[in-house]
Amino acid sequence: MIDVMLNHRSIRKYKSDSVSEEVLNRILHAGTRASTTGNMQVYSIIVNREKELKDQLWASHFKQKMVQDAPVLLTFCADFNRFNKWCENRKASPGYDNFLSFFTAAIDALLVAQNVALAAENEGLGICYLGTTTYNAEKIIQQLQLPKFVVPITAFTVGYPDENPPLTDRLPVDGVVHYEHYKDYSDKDINSIYSEKESLKQTHELIEINQTETLAQIFTEKRYTKKDNIAFSQALLKVLEKQGFMNNG
Amino acid sequence: MIDVMLNHRSIRKYKSDSVSEEVLNRILHAGTRASTTGNMQVYSIIVNREKELKDQLWASHFKQKMVQDAPVLLTFCADFNRFNKWCENRKASPGYDNFLSFFTAAIDALLVAQNVALAAENEGLGICYLGTTTYNAEKIIQQLQLPKFVVPITAFTVGYPDENPPLTDRLPVDGVVHYEHYKDYSDKDINSIYSEKESLKQTHELIEINQTETLAQIFTEKRYTKKDNIAFSQALLKVLEKQGFMNNG
Repeated sequence: MIDVMLNHRSIRKYKSDSVSEEVLNRILHAGTRASTTGNMQVYSIIVNREKELKDQLWASHFKQKMVQDAPVLLTFCADFNRFNKWCENRKASPGYDNFLSFFTAAIDALLVAQNVALAAENEGLGICYLGTTTYNAEKIIQQLQLPKFVVPITAFTVGYPDENPPLTDRLPVDGVVHYEHYKDYSDKDINSIYSEKESLKQTHELIEINQTETLAQIFTEKRYTKKDNIAFSQALLKVLEKQGFMNNG
Repeated sequence: MIDVMLNHRSIRKYKSDSVSEEVLNRILHAGTRASTTGNMQVYSIIVNREKELKDQLWASHFKQKMVQDAPVLLTFCADFNRFNKWCENRKASPGYDNFLSFFTAAIDALLVAQNVALAAENEGLGICYLGTTTYNAEKIIQQLQLPKFVVPITAFTVGYPDENPPLTDRLPVDGVVHYEHYKDYSDKDINSIYSEKESLKQTHELIEINQTETLAQIFTEKRYTKKDNIAFSQALLKVLEKQGFMNNG
């Protein structure tokens, strides 16, 4: 079990082999055993395998090639639609059209997603999370026909690996764990925590390719810019409003 | 591996046995192998074991007894503080003071949390997630001394189980999975999806204790009311503002 976690790497190249119904059902079932708030299970999972719709979703995911190539794409959604309908059918008046309820449902969706991801890897499958899910939520909502009170939170591709990339680096455990209180980071701490990452061969290559002075500048100037983040923030808040989750009194 | 997931139940009663450093380090290390956006690892984990602070946190978690009783409480935070400091020390100008960045960091924290939860269960430990983390984020921020750009997202207790509760019910897998498009629920679908839950002996007992007509009313009128949700929504949005994540252009 721990081995599956320790061996995790994102897989971006897949064999053409399909994922059987049996395997797919097993990993989805493992997902549904995750903890959810009050056991409400306010999430939904959308399975995409057909080419046409997967190609549309590929465009929403910034044309990342693995979305087209992987046999399966799973999208995990915050979903109060089902629960609200149940309440309304049971003489109960749901009060879940607010930000807290959205966030509760997002937590459910993410714990379920990680269960499914690990269950998939345990079956010999590879996965790759798609951060683009929240960037382009509005388009994905249209493509998957998500009703009010449903918002896509994360997604990943699933298939049998056709590559065996090395483990990616991580910050030292002590760099992300605090005991009792949060211990804020001195300049010296920052240097120590990031030193291994900064000394990697691929870091030096990245800096050369991107023609920046530091690795951090690749993040702030190329990959995750303020301009993009503000545009995506506005779009995501608009989606929450539109999907019915911003009636905060 | 799948067995660990299928056997998951929330554990609320713990033996007094402590969790060794070795075991704790192993489960935290497994957490750090989870996928994070762009491998930025924008999360932190706070470990609480000392009585005094754990008692304060117990109050923030609505005095749920297991917070006092469990030997370990882990709090998983969205954390852009460390990354921002790194950027600033490396001549890079971070643009992560917005809602999208908060949500990205929350996703990181939750995938890591579920890895740690499963790794703990794999060691024979029991865990119980605390939804109260977002309800009382402001107090928890004070107690754990979380700086700007750090927000607690979820927490769970950890310890050796002193109970063996039955598995809790789940909706049928087909009730939460959709193929290709979202298939909205008819009244008949809702009846079918919730029938098993509604026919359980403990459901009938709960309805009798709560003196409601339906199970759904226990959720809307007792457990997760509109009034509470609105108050918690306002508090959480205020926390995001205060921690620096609402500069959305």
